[in-house]
Amino acid sequence: MLKSIDINCDMGESFGNWKMGDDEGMMPYITTANVACGFHASDPLTMIDTCRKAKDHKIAVGAHPGLPDLLGFGRRTMNITPEDAYAYVVYQVGALQASLATQGMRLHHIKPHGAFYSVLKTSPELAEAVAEAIEKLSDHPILYWPAPTSAALPTACKKRGIRVVGEIYPDLHYAADGSLVIQRQKHETDVAFACAQVKRYVQTGKVEALDGSLVELDAESLCIHGDGPNSVEVARAIQRTLQDIGCEIKPVLQ
Amino acid sequence: MLKSIDINCDMGESFGNWKMGDDEGMMPYITTANVACGFHASDPLTMIDTCRKAKDHKIAVGAHPGLPDLLGFGRRTMNITPEDAYAYVVYQVGALQASLATQGMRLHHIKPHGAFYSVLKTSPELAEAVAEAIEKLSDHPILYWPAPTSAALPTACKKRGIRVVGEIYPDLHYAADGSLVIQRQKHETDVAFACAQVKRYVQTGKVEALDGSLVELDAESLCIHGDGPNSVEVARAIQRTLQDIGCEIKPVLQ
Amino acid sequence: MLKSIDINCDMGESFGNWKMGDDEGMMPYITTANVACGFHASDPLTMIDTCRKAKDHKIAVGAHPGLPDLLGFGRRTMNITPEDAYAYVVYQVGALQASLATQGMRLHHIKPHGAFYSVLKTSPELAEAVAEAIEKLSDHPILYWPAPTSAALPTACKKRGIRVVGEIYPDLHYAADGSLVIQRQKHETDVAFACAQVKRYVQTGKVEALDGSLVELDAESLCIHGDGPNSVEVARAIQRTLQDIGCEIKPVLQ
Amino acid sequence: MLKSIDINCDMGESFGNWKMGDDEGMMPYITTANVACGFHASDPLTMIDTCRKAKDHKIAVGAHPGLPDLLGFGRRTMNITPEDAYAYVVYQVGALQASLATQGMRLHHIKPHGAFYSVLKTSPELAEAVAEAIEKLSDHPILYWPAPTSAALPTACKKRGIRVVGEIYPDLHYAADGSLVIQRQKHETDVAFACAQVKRYVQTGKVEALDGSLVELDAESLCIHGDGPNSVEVARAIQRTLQDIGCEIKPVLQ
Repeated sequence: MLKSIDINCDMGESFGNWKMGDDEGMMPYITTANVACGFHASDPLTMIDTCRKAKDHKIAVGAHPGLPDLLGFGRRTMNITPEDAYAYVVYQVGALQASLATQGMRLHHIKPHGAFYSVLKTSPELAEAVAEAIEKLSDHPILYWPAPTSAALPTACKKRGIRVVGEIYPDLHYAADGSLVIQRQKHETDVAFACAQVKRYVQTGKVEALDGSLVELDAESLCIHGDGPNSVEVARAIQRTLQDIGCEIKPVLQ
Repeated sequence: MLKSIDINCDMGESFGNWKMGDDEGMMPYITTANVACGFHASDPLTMIDTCRKAKDHKIAVGAHPGLPDLLGFGRRTMNITPEDAYAYVVYQVGALQASLATQGMRLHHIKPHGAFYSVLKTSPELAEAVAEAIEKLSDHPILYWPAPTSAALPTACKKRGIRVVGEIYPDLHYAADGSLVIQRQKHETDVAFACAQVKRYVQTGKVEALDGSLVELDAESLCIHGDGPNSVEVARAIQRTLQDIGCEIKPVLQ
Repeated sequence: MLKSIDINCDMGESFGNWKMGDDEGMMPYITTANVACGFHASDPLTMIDTCRKAKDHKIAVGAHPGLPDLLGFGRRTMNITPEDAYAYVVYQVGALQASLATQGMRLHHIKPHGAFYSVLKTSPELAEAVAEAIEKLSDHPILYWPAPTSAALPTACKKRGIRVVGEIYPDLHYAADGSLVIQRQKHETDVAFACAQVKRYVQTGKVEALDGSLVELDAESLCIHGDGPNSVEVARAIQRTLQDIGCEIKPVLQ
Repeated sequence: MLKSIDINCDMGESFGNWKMGDDEGMMPYITTANVACGFHASDPLTMIDTCRKAKDHKIAVGAHPGLPDLLGFGRRTMNITPEDAYAYVVYQVGALQASLATQGMRLHHIKPHGAFYSVLKTSPELAEAVAEAIEKLSDHPILYWPAPTSAALPTACKKRGIRVVGEIYPDLHYAADGSLVIQRQKHETDVAFACAQVKRYVQTGKVEALDGSLVELDAESLCIHGDGPNSVEVARAIQRTLQDIGCEIKPVLQ
């Protein structure tokens, strides 16, 4: 059984006058935040504000860079070059590092968002470019990536000695090969399902796939969603589940 | 007479497929570059590329943050709050700092662009917010500002102990109070006028105002324009003028 | 007493993944919608979708053009030229006209948004440019404008024979000169206040100013807000008030 | 031999302060302009200005809609939905129609740009959506498309009775199946090659493919590029070639 686990959540996804997610409501239940950097969501004010709130809640902050597509929320794949991918990570992570510096904080990790994640899953050229950027941007770089961490970007990161932290998604289903079955709409998350998945994983290191098989995964963090209709309820239930089985909730140390 | 002077120039003002200015043509004649940060001009690829070229030419790089107005090239005043101003500086400077880090370089200075400069000239509230941001973003912060440096932002910076470097504009006319008379269109710069203004300033510390009076100004840098039809010619002529009168061209040390 | 009155509401203010306002909830209570056109809010999909819903509810649709400032929701004044103002109206209204054409609908009116409204209130040069654009874009142009309609844009429109429809804001306070006292935050609207203001205006043609004086205003429409926490409740209460006093709710005919 | 042919050129590709192409230099040599609509290039001022110049030169104006990607000049494929494609065409074409209306002009045709063209070449779902939009936006809709016009969008358009005008590219090479071999960089166009290709096509209805075979193509227009270093020279040479062989240059009638 895992003695402790990290809980991360995407945050800072408001844009100007448009609000998204209940960041303040979620913060008491998480240890790490992935903060959007202005390309698919967020803006300079929101980023600083999110860092400030994270500091108040003693939450570690990582960058959540996306493709330059506010209109599509970074969820549409775009045919970018490795040079683009490198520069987009540098620009966005730098903007967040400065936002963190205003609060006396430092960057914790990097986790690609949406369609940027998708293209970095499969393209070795884009992955190589992004791994190089991650290496250059931090003295203690960490990549967050959904377990199993055998995709293009985590592979490129490991080759460079960048630490890769695997994640489990409590509210998503898994296929027999350990891949996520993404059918997320903004419906309510099934609280019992999410808590059972968390409990099983923490106690056995395995998730149950859709075909009933058990799949072993290597993860140090749970990724929970903050923009669903019952996100805070889910977060609270997962917290209670972890407390009940004696698993401490604490951040990944850099 | 001044023994040495710095020459700075706005750079990295291309955007995606649109090119602006002849950065490579200008670099042999300058010591310091003010690089746009994506709000009024530039983009992540252009920023990294400009830092790389600056390194090749041993040019110091500062941030040239602007208002979020690509369509207006940051030249239209916008009614922003001090919180906006603070966050816009943090975001843009951070993005440039990371671009510099990829080249093993560090931020040299900060110089506001266009209408952002204009509102920081007169508003003490915006100036206070930006001075605080500058202080937080660098261990050895420097502000570049057109002499005389008595406007709102340089005043707020000096109060915080931030070094302020005054600039002379060789191709612009001055009023009797030392203020710039901006009537820049993209016509040719009068090379003889620009060289005479540089020579007079370096030898006497004064510029000749439009009414014929001589105005004493405190400056350590010349700001030359890189987007005019004869910019490279002007730069070369100023270089020769400075060599002829025995004034060394070298960057402002941090 | 007025026999009938129009009720208009800003709509289509979502942007991509970010939702704003309860358009569907408000539509049963209004006769006319002011649809954002992509510069300060909305996007191509949202615009067509809003037109489709308006058609289902037999609601007339006008354009709500704003300044090009998504980040600031078009609420920050920008120093634009008359040529800019003209072109921004043409572009945005054209985009909405085509959206309407997909539903077999035609443009009903034009109503400037936020800071665009503000600069058109005072600048005769900008007002002249926008009035010319309005004239060119429609065979039966109508301008919606808060009563009293003596500001720069409605004045320029009247000179060209463009019909100007004055509006009353049920939830806002008025000064003794008839101007609006805008202190809108997203707090709850006082339903009783709003209904009383509507009732008084419909029965007497007057609103009560903050100093207790009664101010005569010339209006054919009520503008209600759709983005407050109790907007639908307010709309329903105003509908009931108008029914109680026998004032028909119907659109302004073109 | 063809008795007459149309010459079209992409125009209005400047954006704010950034200039692109020599529209005024090209206009004497063309009969039809494809004007960018603000998603991949152009802006409201540029669009109206381009329509005004086109009117002066008696040039027919069509819409050149692109994907919403200014940074990538609309040249990066994006994973959009049919609903997106439909709405993007409606929005952009509407904006251009209003720009044309200010000059008393009407929309001549529609021609998708860059990566929008690419996805419409192969996706029947996107093509169907865009064909429906084109049908709704004009009483006499015309699609411009590189010959051969057997791709997804021209096929969907023909099914709806929308007229499809095929184009020949004088400066590009063809494969044996009639497809374009795009390896355009901004090098000089080979004037002799372009003129020979035009002459052969006008006289025989065929182009010579890279493998030496002759390919029959059905086209009524030549598309020439306005952003190359010798674009005006190429245009002038093509004009002379057509005059020499007695082929009239005139627009496609609506």
